Formats: sequence, C-alpha cells, structure tokens
Amino acid sequence: MGIEKTYYGYPQMLEDLGILLKKMDGYRPEAMIAIARGGLTVSHFLAHAWKLNSLYTLNSVHYAGTEKLEDVQIFNVPDIQGAKEVLVVDEIVDSGESLEAIMALLKSHYPDTIFKTLALFQKKTACFQADFWAREADSWIDFFWEVDLKA
Amino acid sequence: MGIEKTYYGYPQMLEDLGILLKKMDGYRPEAMIAIARGGLTVSHFLAHAWKLNSLYTLNSVHYAGTEKLEDVQIFNVPDIQGAKEVLVVDEIVDSGESLEAIMALLKSHYPDTIFKTLALFQKKTACFQADFWAREADSWIDFFWEVDLKA
Repeated sequence: MGIEKTYYGYPQMLEDLGILLKKMDGYRPEAMIAIARGGLTVSHFLAHAWKLNSLYTLNSVHYAGTEKLEDVQIFNVPDIQGAKEVLVVDEIVDSGESLEAIMALLKSHYPDTIFKTLALFQKKTACFQADFWAREADSWIDFFWEVDLKA
Repeated sequence: MGIEKTYYGYPQMLEDLGILLKKMDGYRPEAMIAIARGGLTVSHFLAHAWKLNSLYTLNSVHYAGTEKLEDVQIFNVPDIQGAKEVLVVDEIVDSGESLEAIMALLKSHYPDTIFKTLALFQKKTACFQADFWAREADSWIDFFWEVDLKA
C-alpha cells in the first residue's frame, strides 16, 4: 500500500489563511521569518495582507541518517533589524524537530524578541506545536507550489 | 486619471513559468536567490520544478527620496554554499536600479559564481535587463500574492 497523498490547492490556502488571519485578530508581528523552502509562499501572502515589508528567511535542512541520530542544519539566520515581535512561518509541522531546533537557535540569537510560529498543517504527534495552524495533517500533503508547475 | 492596473493571476504565472522553463532548456542553476519580497513565490515554484533545495533570499529596499538621489539598501546577503551557477529571481524589473545594485553586490561577494537573472515582467526602459523574462510590463501589475488574500 502506498502513502495516502492529499492535494492542497491554491484556493484552500487562501481560505485557510483568511481563517488564520481572523483567529490572529489583534496579533500583528513586526517581521516574519519564513523557513525555506516550505514557508516562502505562505509568508509572501501574509506579508502583503499585513502590508509588512520585513520578510526574512532562513535555511533549514533536516538530515535523517540511517542511525537514530538526526541532525538539523540551520543557516542564513537573518538580521531581523531589531524587530521585537516576529512570526516564524512554515508550511507543515511534521515531527516538529526542525522547528524546535530553529526556535531554540532564534531565541539564543535574539533573546529580547518574542517569537510566535505559524504553519498551515500541524501533526498531533509533533514534539513542537505551532502557535497558529489551520489543519491537522494525517496524510502526505502535496502542496500546490510543489506539484502545479512541471519542469 | 488613475494608473492603469493589470491583475496577474495564479494560472497566468503557471503558464508563464512553464514557457520560461522551456526557454531555459539546458540551463539549470545550482542555487537560486529570491529578492524578498517580490521573488519569493516565483522562486518557490521554480525550486520544486527543478527539485532544487538551495533556495536563498536577500532583502532589498529601494528608497526613492524627494531629491533625485536614490538609495538601494541590500541586506541579508545569503551564504550560497559554494554554488557556481546561481539564478537571481524577482517578480518585475521596473527601473532596474535595484537589480543592478543587487547584481553588482553579489558579483563582488562571489566573484567566481556565474549569476543569471529571471523576472516575470520586464520594462523596456529599465537600466538593467533580466536574462530570462516572460512579459513586457506597460502598466502597474497587481500580482495575485499581493491582492488575493485580504487581512
């Protein structure tokens, strides 16, 4: 049996982000950090909805080795220009290990900044839960930015 | 009389990127740098079409003062991890001044890297022309990531 795959389309993202914006009523970060690549499209839309120019990214690669030791490599941590309220954006919180490592690193870099996290999808079993999320993930998700354009 | 505005939708981007991918046949960068915010969504789609993990960003703010002196502030120049062929991605080349300044800075940071540039829209009058582009811009463009989601 193959892995169940669910297609997640552009209209669904618009709807989910609309709901999230209402849920986050009153919350308005000074800056966003998108986790590349997953959070790029989502953060781009949120930045315009909020008229927020301060959109930064960082790179994260999660190596899952053959041994149980796993390693999260995080680089290109951005200069956030003194922002005090920052939203970190990804598309899905799966195991939660990457996001946990990223948040620990960001907090050590910027101890005076209040970070919150947003993801479209959240797994119940994840070791780190996003502050804001739209849907629970129970299958593999094919995001429209991953599959709609063919090379 | 107001400025003429043209809406640029999601299906149009898919179509234009499909055409650009065919035009760029044989060209396959090792990494991409998206100019934030404009190039984020476009580069996200291209990265998946090319199965390219190495997607970085930089920030650029173009201050147009009341005097003729203009200033382009560029920051968060990424570590490109030794990539030798890099595509710089933006949504539109308008005056071309930002992109010219960005490319000069990138070339001084990474003298051994071959940079090419891609934009969806290109103005004929721009002082810097992208290597790859899909449409000529002759009005104000409302990109779907700017206007489809309302706060």
